[in-house]
Amino acid sequence: MPTLKDIAKKLNLSVSTVSKGLSGASDVSMKTRQEILGTAVKIGYVPKQAKSDTAPKRICVFIENMGYERVEQFGYDIIIGFKLEAAAKKWDVSIMPLAMNEEAKYDYDEFMVANNYSAGFLLGFNLHNDFIKQLDKTNIPTVLLDNVVYNKNVACVGVDNRQGIFYAVEHLVNLGHKKIAMLNGETVSMVSDERLQGFLSGMRAFGLETDEKLIANGDYTSDMADKYVSSFVENGATAIVCASDLIAHGVMRELYRMGVRVPDDVSVIGFDDLPLASYTTPSLTTIRQNRLEIGRNVCLVMEQILRGNCVSRLLLMPELVKRESTGLPKGYEAT
Amino acid sequence: MPTLKDIAKKLNLSVSTVSKGLSGASDVSMKTRQEILGTAVKIGYVPKQAKSDTAPKRICVFIENMGYERVEQFGYDIIIGFKLEAAAKKWDVSIMPLAMNEEAKYDYDEFMVANNYSAGFLLGFNLHNDFIKQLDKTNIPTVLLDNVVYNKNVACVGVDNRQGIFYAVEHLVNLGHKKIAMLNGETVSMVSDERLQGFLSGMRAFGLETDEKLIANGDYTSDMADKYVSSFVENGATAIVCASDLIAHGVMRELYRMGVRVPDDVSVIGFDDLPLASYTTPSLTTIRQNRLEIGRNVCLVMEQILRGNCVSRLLLMPELVKRESTGLPKGYEAT
Repeated sequence: MPTLKDIAKKLNLSVSTVSKGLSGASDVSMKTRQEILGTAVKIGYVPKQAKSDTAPKRICVFIENMGYERVEQFGYDIIIGFKLEAAAKKWDVSIMPLAMNEEAKYDYDEFMVANNYSAGFLLGFNLHNDFIKQLDKTNIPTVLLDNVVYNKNVACVGVDNRQGIFYAVEHLVNLGHKKIAMLNGETVSMVSDERLQGFLSGMRAFGLETDEKLIANGDYTSDMADKYVSSFVENGATAIVCASDLIAHGVMRELYRMGVRVPDDVSVIGFDDLPLASYTTPSLTTIRQNRLEIGRNVCLVMEQILRGNCVSRLLLMPELVKRESTGLPKGYEAT
Repeated sequence: MPTLKDIAKKLNLSVSTVSKGLSGASDVSMKTRQEILGTAVKIGYVPKQAKSDTAPKRICVFIENMGYERVEQFGYDIIIGFKLEAAAKKWDVSIMPLAMNEEAKYDYDEFMVANNYSAGFLLGFNLHNDFIKQLDKTNIPTVLLDNVVYNKNVACVGVDNRQGIFYAVEHLVNLGHKKIAMLNGETVSMVSDERLQGFLSGMRAFGLETDEKLIANGDYTSDMADKYVSSFVENGATAIVCASDLIAHGVMRELYRMGVRVPDDVSVIGFDDLPLASYTTPSLTTIRQNRLEIGRNVCLVMEQILRGNCVSRLLLMPELVKRESTGLPKGYEAT
């Protein structure tokens, strides 16, 4: 395999000049740099970070506010996907569930170094958490689910939330809906923010007006839906986009209490595709987050930042899963 | 290495049930799925897509509207980074420069299949281009620079534009600037859009008011700067954030003509870190896009979508490079 030395010899330069030229240092002239890069490509030089790193890695996964022990919980597949990909790399994975605010006791970097962890994966935290705030300055390669921290050692992985909700709106518009409501999660959440933006851009893209009375922020549970659903229906909504399957479950339960039929009177669409989506009556049309893939990609991104490759964010494609909870608006005939 | 068969044997299930359980098919019960996934992790099963694919790949790179043949041009390092990483994978890379609108002659999928290409990399195109529009439906794994197309076979790679301009604003605010202008590129560009959002969120984050008279859209060249710079200065700007180094170069030239000194009277900051940024007088403070890394990551993302892993977007971290064109606002003393 050709090395820096081979490039240096070919061009009659020092190895250190070649190394600088490859990395773009400004004290190598443009002409020399072009010769170095051109020669590297010609002789098939393979950069160091592309060579496989065989040192075994110890990884710590921190989880807060997220179920992961049973297959019906959101975190389960993510952890499994991560572990499967980590096993392929022969990485050793520890799982550390944290009780709410317990992490305040830890200095993240100290903890990781003391326990000989090479990298961390954090899921279920919110951005206002003290633990997460430490990540602004961390030197430990770290991957976060869904949140964004701007530090070259920290990367974020998640589905493209804007696009997911856009698909939901598109599906409802294709069925003929015009008065579409959105029931979102907490306002202080990047995920909620992006899902709202997806909703607004979808409505705009299809030339529909958004009505303030048809947009509400609750939280990511089933139980707050009853506060908003009757007002949506009174204000003429024929379809409700929900920011999670749990929210959608609460919405469907409330509609049932009100005697409003799904999807005959009102269509409902969720987000996540948790196992529960197949078991509601009617079964739930939703936007799928492929959580096994999320877990696998966390591992792939972790490998990149361990190599010093500055990945900021990896977004995965969500997918519309059509089931029974969405249909034509009342009075519409199938064409 | 453990296989699906080993899992099936251990659980007394068929191989097809195990395969369905691993991929999350809904006709496998949750209980069975949990057993399958748990067993897979326990025995160290490695999923197919994590095994290396040894078939050599032929890749076609299409370039439009972007210089790439000389080291001082934007595309040069991207192509080199891509080729270096591709060489490590023993992929065969063809470069196909397209004259403006020439691509209208091609059916993208037909062309790729007829020429036995496994994947494409497109750079320098704009979203309104006919060629790009074909990507909505393409079956060919394709990576785009900076643009976004929503199709599971297409992924986008680029730096995090919002964060880059945010860093620029943060740097100027730390120096003491309050009246900050932004000269952006074309409005019909996702990149311009994201850079504007980065500017607005930076100003908001530091409690500064944005003034409509201090924000303008031109294009990504040096020559349009003269139209806007005098108005920025008349309206009190002490610093100008530019959406590219070429724009910044034009701004500095115009300020020089006007007799306004950089950075004593007005600070200027660019975006890209083209080689020219070291050669302007004064040298240009800018936001660096590491273009070698961009090229390498295009290759890594391409590998993922060739495996069927639905990556939507990979964003890389930009970096502030401080040089001479930014300083304290006039009348400020260094503290």
